[in-house]
Amino acid sequence: MSAKGKPVEAALTKHLEKVFHPRSVAVVGVSERLDNAGTLLLRSLIDMGFSGPLYPVNPRHGEILGLACYPSVAAIPEPPEMVILSVPPEAVPAVVTECVAIGVAVCVVNTAGFSEAGTVEGKELERQLLEVVRGSELRLVGPNCMGIYSSGGRLALFRGQRPEGGKVSFLSQSGSLASMLYMLGAERGIMFSKMVSSGNELDLNCADFLEYFAEDPETEIIVAYLEQVRDPRRFLDAAKRIEGRKPLLVWKAGLTDKGRRAAASHTGAIAGNAEIWRAVVRQTGIVAVDGLADTVDTLSAFYHLARPSGRRVCVISPPGGVAVNASDAAERNGLAMPPLDPDTVRRLGEVLPHVGTSFNNPVDMGFGAVVPGNMGKVIEIVASDPEVDVLLVVGGAPGYRDGDPGLMKMHGAEISEAFGAIDKPLVVVGIPSGFAFPFVAELSWKGMPCYLSPDAACRALARYMDFLGLQKP
Amino acid sequence: MSAKGKPVEAALTKHLEKVFHPRSVAVVGVSERLDNAGTLLLRSLIDMGFSGPLYPVNPRHGEILGLACYPSVAAIPEPPEMVILSVPPEAVPAVVTECVAIGVAVCVVNTAGFSEAGTVEGKELERQLLEVVRGSELRLVGPNCMGIYSSGGRLALFRGQRPEGGKVSFLSQSGSLASMLYMLGAERGIMFSKMVSSGNELDLNCADFLEYFAEDPETEIIVAYLEQVRDPRRFLDAAKRIEGRKPLLVWKAGLTDKGRRAAASHTGAIAGNAEIWRAVVRQTGIVAVDGLADTVDTLSAFYHLARPSGRRVCVISPPGGVAVNASDAAERNGLAMPPLDPDTVRRLGEVLPHVGTSFNNPVDMGFGAVVPGNMGKVIEIVASDPEVDVLLVVGGAPGYRDGDPGLMKMHGAEISEAFGAIDKPLVVVGIPSGFAFPFVAELSWKGMPCYLSPDAACRALARYMDFLGLQKP
Repeated sequence: MSAKGKPVEAALTKHLEKVFHPRSVAVVGVSERLDNAGTLLLRSLIDMGFSGPLYPVNPRHGEILGLACYPSVAAIPEPPEMVILSVPPEAVPAVVTECVAIGVAVCVVNTAGFSEAGTVEGKELERQLLEVVRGSELRLVGPNCMGIYSSGGRLALFRGQRPEGGKVSFLSQSGSLASMLYMLGAERGIMFSKMVSSGNELDLNCADFLEYFAEDPETEIIVAYLEQVRDPRRFLDAAKRIEGRKPLLVWKAGLTDKGRRAAASHTGAIAGNAEIWRAVVRQTGIVAVDGLADTVDTLSAFYHLARPSGRRVCVISPPGGVAVNASDAAERNGLAMPPLDPDTVRRLGEVLPHVGTSFNNPVDMGFGAVVPGNMGKVIEIVASDPEVDVLLVVGGAPGYRDGDPGLMKMHGAEISEAFGAIDKPLVVVGIPSGFAFPFVAELSWKGMPCYLSPDAACRALARYMDFLGLQKP
Repeated sequence: MSAKGKPVEAALTKHLEKVFHPRSVAVVGVSERLDNAGTLLLRSLIDMGFSGPLYPVNPRHGEILGLACYPSVAAIPEPPEMVILSVPPEAVPAVVTECVAIGVAVCVVNTAGFSEAGTVEGKELERQLLEVVRGSELRLVGPNCMGIYSSGGRLALFRGQRPEGGKVSFLSQSGSLASMLYMLGAERGIMFSKMVSSGNELDLNCADFLEYFAEDPETEIIVAYLEQVRDPRRFLDAAKRIEGRKPLLVWKAGLTDKGRRAAASHTGAIAGNAEIWRAVVRQTGIVAVDGLADTVDTLSAFYHLARPSGRRVCVISPPGGVAVNASDAAERNGLAMPPLDPDTVRRLGEVLPHVGTSFNNPVDMGFGAVVPGNMGKVIEIVASDPEVDVLLVVGGAPGYRDGDPGLMKMHGAEISEAFGAIDKPLVVVGIPSGFAFPFVAELSWKGMPCYLSPDAACRALARYMDFLGLQKP
């Protein structure tokens, strides 16, 4: 049941289609000021190439950003399918009432100042808004949200988003995290099909969006940032239905007392209890992640990696210290690191020096790593070993040669080329430095997930292998 | 007792002074090839501005890098205080024998191919080398190491290191990690007094270096990367002696089966057991860190932060989602997040909008963060609250303004200025993105430790507070 007190299943798909693919959009609360939130949003729709009619609404203007402006929603010749509201909170109930009256399908209420404000006025306004939508056909996103990104529907949460899409959909109870994940994704070769910033979830809630993403053929991976699961039974049922089939990564915030308090004033959420959440994760196959970096790291493995045959990893590292660190990380995360085939060891010995190196998983390349061509050769030799399912390659090692990123660049090129020649998944570890980022972006876009520590790489890899049901050693 | 079987205390300080401040240095194993390891090392000493005599040694050359070249160590007119060896392993025992004969104080044996190689020949060579130094006055660093960095002594591990020093000394059983930590430090405003890559530790070992750093007035913080603690009693005694006085951060590698195996082939280490290590940490006040990023993050708090009065943190964040995340992180790491003083809340309400914000720790600035000047004002207001000991400030939030780093730049400038005007420690959280790094470097160099996640920030802060003995809430 939705907050509106009617069964949702029947109408849901139809309505959510219109949330992500509206034929026409009105934006209420635009002005001539270019830093006005509504105007920025209208502009982002234009930048995205939204193809249907766009209607700015403001009684004091005739034209905004080259588009005819209407005094009210009711004055638009044909009722828009979606209306986005960026008006003061007091004005919201009246505008939504007008939308109901003319048959608008979806209202997205960006405006904040409702129950999350913790004031009597905010709660009363939210109650009024619920009254307006209850029993109507109109479905509402928000309030206190940043709206929708849709690659196919050409909608954007913020300026800078692009129509080129990918296979992830993100359901977020924080608008700023949606914009951050989009931008971090772009640095890691990860693109999105859809995003929703769902705010206070007065009507449409995370269970509705999860059900939609679960069935959406354009969505192959689902990520959620949740402060409160407002309709837990439906949410968990949907999670169970896709278990093992479509990965669902959930970052659950507000699991501590302080976090709970912060969540309440952020989206009016009642965030729940850490133990209950852990039980939910165990029962549903949800992939639990924690924090922005962990979310991007984990997503990167699910997004880029082909299915490996098993959990057997070979670590290849120029610096010996990182090889030790990667071995600890592999074991802690339940990955196997078998000894290499004697033939592989022999062939590595033909390429690498025999001093300051080690050939038997981890492969410590030592100073052999500075010789052009060696990194590529080592990858190809290791990939041909029947004992190895996945390669974990450490790229570069500043200090070996003048402390410049030259070695990282050379390794980047060799890793890319070798990756094209082998048929096994390959994961790259750089170093947690600003100058590693161009390298991370380049390799990620070629399909190799990149990490800034062996531990982050092994954790992401293990979660992916767990999801695939690959047995632990 | 040292590996040489004689009491070390007496001669130790004198010898280690010469390890870090030799009056003259010979490098054996240089050539005209500029990518030769010995030649690179010689060049790095010249770049560092080493002020004493430098002697390249090679029987086939008269001059190298503009310096007179000698056919052997014995042929140098005055015996050098330090001799660095970068020759094939078979040649090492003979050169060191010559060094003993002429009264060299310290040999640094960069050459690998000893016990860590796991071969009969390597072990036999290491035994021979031990025979040579046993009972002599000569002290040996390595073999299988990358040597010494000394700011005051003008020694470098690799090219690109600079004479400008700082207050950290690093004891590393991995040379490549020493070079990486140096470079990452430079991005985080952290400079080093001394570094030693101690390799197989045939003679001088981690206990010797720890004892020296413990007494060294130039060393205020000690960091160690250890695969094996070869002289555990002396090491732990030294750790206990500085407990609560001089922080000792230890990254202990090789605590899993696979890590142990990798450590054995990296530096011949017998890495030990995770439970024993945990007991050691509890008994000695060692600050346990894990991995390169965690080491730099933790070091950053110890390096930059003034002593806070207590564990009470106020989180200031433009994005609400990150404010929730930071609140969870604060509680998980045992930090207090008290409600703000009513007067602070009132003053925040005069600066920030009342909608889409929250004033009572965390301070969620919402769209108020895009107004120039607000970030600085909020920091000054919060810093004046008697309930707050430390400020945790989230800088920027892409997406609020066109998805460019403009907001981060604006916040960076305001945070810096406000930091100069307040008298409380301030910690900054950016986002895990390449474009955050210039911001991280800039603020770090001004004395504000910067992190890429609230969790990393709170973990580092909590470790620093634990070290200071500040009581948990």
